[in-house]
Amino acid sequence: MEYLAKLHKKSILHSTQCLVRFGLQAIHSNFREVIVTFGILSRLLIGRPLHNIELGHEKLPKWKALSIFSSDAISSVGYGPEQVAIVLAVPGILAYGYFSDVILAVVLLLGIVTLSYVQVAKANPGGGGSYSVAIHNLGELPALVAAASLFADYVLTVAVSISSGTDALISAFPGLVGKEVTIDLIVLVGVLMLINLRGVRESSNVFVLPTYLFILGMLVMISAGIYQALLGAGPVIPHESVARQQFDMAMLVLVLRAFANGCSSMTGVEAISNGVPMFEEPAVSNSIKTAVLMSGLLGFILAGVGFLIMHYHLMPMENVTMLSQLAENIFGRDWFYYYIQITTMLILYLAANTSYNGLPPLLSILAKDKYVPRYLGYRGERLSFSNGIVLLTFSAGLLIWIFNGNVEHLISLYAIGVFLSFTIAQVGLIVYWRKEKSANWKMRSAINALGALTTGIVVLVIGESKFESGAWIIVVFIPIMVYIFKKIRRHYDDMAEQLHLSMDKGNPFVPAKPGRNIVVIPIASPTKVVAQTVLYAKTISDNIIALYVATDPEEAERIRTKWNACDTGVPLATVASNYRLVIQPILTFIGKLEREKRPEDFITVLIPEFETNKWWHRFLHNQTGLILRTLLILRDNVIVTTIPYHLKK
Amino acid sequence: MEYLAKLHKKSILHSTQCLVRFGLQAIHSNFREVIVTFGILSRLLIGRPLHNIELGHEKLPKWKALSIFSSDAISSVGYGPEQVAIVLAVPGILAYGYFSDVILAVVLLLGIVTLSYVQVAKANPGGGGSYSVAIHNLGELPALVAAASLFADYVLTVAVSISSGTDALISAFPGLVGKEVTIDLIVLVGVLMLINLRGVRESSNVFVLPTYLFILGMLVMISAGIYQALLGAGPVIPHESVARQQFDMAMLVLVLRAFANGCSSMTGVEAISNGVPMFEEPAVSNSIKTAVLMSGLLGFILAGVGFLIMHYHLMPMENVTMLSQLAENIFGRDWFYYYIQITTMLILYLAANTSYNGLPPLLSILAKDKYVPRYLGYRGERLSFSNGIVLLTFSAGLLIWIFNGNVEHLISLYAIGVFLSFTIAQVGLIVYWRKEKSANWKMRSAINALGALTTGIVVLVIGESKFESGAWIIVVFIPIMVYIFKKIRRHYDDMAEQLHLSMDKGNPFVPAKPGRNIVVIPIASPTKVVAQTVLYAKTISDNIIALYVATDPEEAERIRTKWNACDTGVPLATVASNYRLVIQPILTFIGKLEREKRPEDFITVLIPEFETNKWWHRFLHNQTGLILRTLLILRDNVIVTTIPYHLKK
Repeated sequence: MEYLAKLHKKSILHSTQCLVRFGLQAIHSNFREVIVTFGILSRLLIGRPLHNIELGHEKLPKWKALSIFSSDAISSVGYGPEQVAIVLAVPGILAYGYFSDVILAVVLLLGIVTLSYVQVAKANPGGGGSYSVAIHNLGELPALVAAASLFADYVLTVAVSISSGTDALISAFPGLVGKEVTIDLIVLVGVLMLINLRGVRESSNVFVLPTYLFILGMLVMISAGIYQALLGAGPVIPHESVARQQFDMAMLVLVLRAFANGCSSMTGVEAISNGVPMFEEPAVSNSIKTAVLMSGLLGFILAGVGFLIMHYHLMPMENVTMLSQLAENIFGRDWFYYYIQITTMLILYLAANTSYNGLPPLLSILAKDKYVPRYLGYRGERLSFSNGIVLLTFSAGLLIWIFNGNVEHLISLYAIGVFLSFTIAQVGLIVYWRKEKSANWKMRSAINALGALTTGIVVLVIGESKFESGAWIIVVFIPIMVYIFKKIRRHYDDMAEQLHLSMDKGNPFVPAKPGRNIVVIPIASPTKVVAQTVLYAKTISDNIIALYVATDPEEAERIRTKWNACDTGVPLATVASNYRLVIQPILTFIGKLEREKRPEDFITVLIPEFETNKWWHRFLHNQTGLILRTLLILRDNVIVTTIPYHLKK
Repeated sequence: MEYLAKLHKKSILHSTQCLVRFGLQAIHSNFREVIVTFGILSRLLIGRPLHNIELGHEKLPKWKALSIFSSDAISSVGYGPEQVAIVLAVPGILAYGYFSDVILAVVLLLGIVTLSYVQVAKANPGGGGSYSVAIHNLGELPALVAAASLFADYVLTVAVSISSGTDALISAFPGLVGKEVTIDLIVLVGVLMLINLRGVRESSNVFVLPTYLFILGMLVMISAGIYQALLGAGPVIPHESVARQQFDMAMLVLVLRAFANGCSSMTGVEAISNGVPMFEEPAVSNSIKTAVLMSGLLGFILAGVGFLIMHYHLMPMENVTMLSQLAENIFGRDWFYYYIQITTMLILYLAANTSYNGLPPLLSILAKDKYVPRYLGYRGERLSFSNGIVLLTFSAGLLIWIFNGNVEHLISLYAIGVFLSFTIAQVGLIVYWRKEKSANWKMRSAINALGALTTGIVVLVIGESKFESGAWIIVVFIPIMVYIFKKIRRHYDDMAEQLHLSMDKGNPFVPAKPGRNIVVIPIASPTKVVAQTVLYAKTISDNIIALYVATDPEEAERIRTKWNACDTGVPLATVASNYRLVIQPILTFIGKLEREKRPEDFITVLIPEFETNKWWHRFLHNQTGLILRTLLILRDNVIVTTIPYHLKK
């Protein structure tokens, strides 16, 4: 281990030198060297490679697990209640009065979902969440639907959490208004992606403090708020916060939409059940205790914040979050106000990080099952699933950029996917309990059935009430993703079948008849590079043809004389090209060779390529070789070899 | 020839089928196939390839030559006088009165320049213009300065002529205001580039009619205008057109600037002297007669238009050219007004075409002298210098796009380059006459000296008076271009030297000691593609190593067992990669081989590459092979061969 640390130190020193080199080379030199140095630059930012033996599973005590897994769920109070109020605070309509009902319904639903998810932990202690449950119990299609909605969730969690975190920051510092997207992207790429590329362990430690600081802040704020409310002169809940219009269809739609929005407060509850293997033994019971504690805290904070919003009769405002208004009402713009804003921002940014712990492992499971490109399953130099991390960053960044960092628009996309995967997991568990028939299986089935029913209804409510404002995107997205998953699986299956070695027709590594190798060298005139190519050709075959395309008969005669004078030992074939085409005659010539050769023979085309010394010299040479290579590679039994010639000047 | 025509017919039919295929493939299939079909699509637009024997030099009679070569010069009246007025018509200053002086000075200068250029035709009957004159008489540096300014001129001619042509169109049809740049680019790419890619002969016939129609229109308009002026009630030249302020330094600057602008009316005069070889015999005397006729016409039209502008006291207006105002004043918005506008537009677009006849041959001369990339000198399928044509189109399009089709801004860039190359050509001729000492050489030198002096002064005037408004760009551009020309020449010279075959140390085509070929095949597991690669390897060497990078020891053991079971006849080398890197261990392994091998040996790395059946399948395979190839190509004596494996599904 000491050796590794030393290595690390050395690599930092080395990287700093390389950073300078990178800058110089980007101006000065070759594209290829830039690629090489890019690798070294990434070393500087990401850190030294980690040895396989360093991959260990840290086991988390409950207090640490609570903070790591709950940042996503608990941070949702940063936008959940606000999303309810946005729907209900329509001017001219007395809808605000239903705020309390909606918040209560959300808290109730939270209880049911928690209860059901406790079962997931029991049934599926290996982690993996909805996709794992579904693939083992329900089959491919539901599993892929779950995978698609999980993918959408994880990406949306990142986008929504980061945008909300930035909103919290902007509320406290209005001078930053207008720079939201920039801040979002810096946090996303510069902080989250880098931390996660550096690897799991370092990132997880970052979680512990901010989550507790935020919970503490919320508890203090709620206590202070209730204290003020009870001692205050006015009514604890003012009349305008409970005034309601008659409940009719239009109002029902409004309330359902508010509820659908409010369900976003519940996102992230599933995190613990997906992470059971990371708990200290006894993992299952520890994880259940943690889940219950988390939901309890979340429910309490939700209810408390909801109550205080009604007490102060807060309205949604542009550029100032309701949590910010609340803190300002209770504490004024005091230091504690800034404490609330900063911890809110931190916990939201950290909530985004939950996806980085969730999606890349999910993608690696999908990659093992061949539903996504295989390289999404590789661990990078730092043992993290680097390709998955980059994919997540790119997708979330794209979303933030398209929606201009506007949380409200993103949230309508959000909840439907979350609840769809909730429902699938619950249904999967019902099947599981029925198969298992372990103790209390009927009771357990019943709990999951209740969960499935409730979350299924929520899916329908959200789908219906928010269809036009964006939920349709998810409805379109999921089938497309499922289709893509299946196509990818199909390709890999096809490929495996095509690549499978069969010994039936003899050993495929040993030719039935020994093949010959016919070497073709297209030349423009006898030069050093041609000489080098001929030398190489002589080591791989004794059947070599130099090929000259003659666009001008006199020039052709000159080249032929020169070639013969060189005594190359290689015959020169000349083909006339009266239309001044160069590539077509070569293709025709090789086509003729192909028809004449025996099936076991190969044709090797040697294409000399100049490796120029300065990057711009590259533009002084035509790309005939490249085009020829591209076209020849389409043919069977024609092998293209590039012979690099390094120009020194 | 009949055979060729039949071929043409067949190729059109074929191309139409291909157009459909192209659309389908762009959606459906492989990037490579798109390249292939792109070639066929271009056949449809550009026409069948032309045989070498079809390259003939059409000889032009005077009446045809006049119209072909003079469109550039004569069309300049479309913007020249206007550019003078723009400077002089400053509100609040009585500068307009100097309009007549400036126009007269321009006409006088035109006379001198024509006289000098007649000498160019005599001294340089092979064509080629300023660059040829300078390289033969003055040396490399002046020649390159001339080449750079000619390059700038040709590109600017295209940009300015097209923008002005579109201005003429917009004046007649104000509904098109705002679409200038779009129209410019459509004319540039869709008409000029295509016509010229189709080839010289077809394009040159397009010239004849519009030029004469324009000249006719101008003569009618000037006659009608003078007739109206003489019969009119008011003064022939109203007082406000000749009212002048006192002539001081500020006014001098203004007048010089107006003169500098006015010199743009003279661009294109050199065209005839560059095209002497295209005239019917006696070419020189025919070309001189044509040049004098052209200058006479241009001078007359300039003077006439200038007079009428003063008579009507016209002022420059946004979106309406002065020629359009003039025609409207004389004829009203009658059919003849539209005749003037349309022929103006046509001749201006055709003037742009002059550059297409001028720049690509100049580039091909420069390419022969190795000052520009060699492929700029190749004749394309249609015998035109297609690369040069595309370069010209791209440069002019970029200019139009950057300057938003605004002629005024472009003109300040224009004249300085034109007059710089005028001056260089004249100086070159003085040297030529002194060397030649033919009859009248003193007289001839004197004429060219006068020309050089005058045009040299004009360069200084323009450079000084328009420096800030854009001429500095040319002043910066020319040295940069000269530097680039020299660097390119240097690279080609270096390359020729490096590629030069020397027989001193024995025949370079025959190895001193016969080299061996060590073949390395990086594998992931024994599959069909590996089997195919091994079969190929066995045809090129009997020294083959399969290389497996083991990121996981158990997996490595499994692969090793599988490999041995296959009885491949090829030893498997396993290198452990505990940091999960794949490329680095392969590079290290090959590095070790490189150090161990003898200098005459080669190392061939065979990289299997999947040729996927659908384009998107490509994204399902990682690009390790590509990166490996890129990095290995940097090494000496390491040859990289791609073994394509065509997936059928």
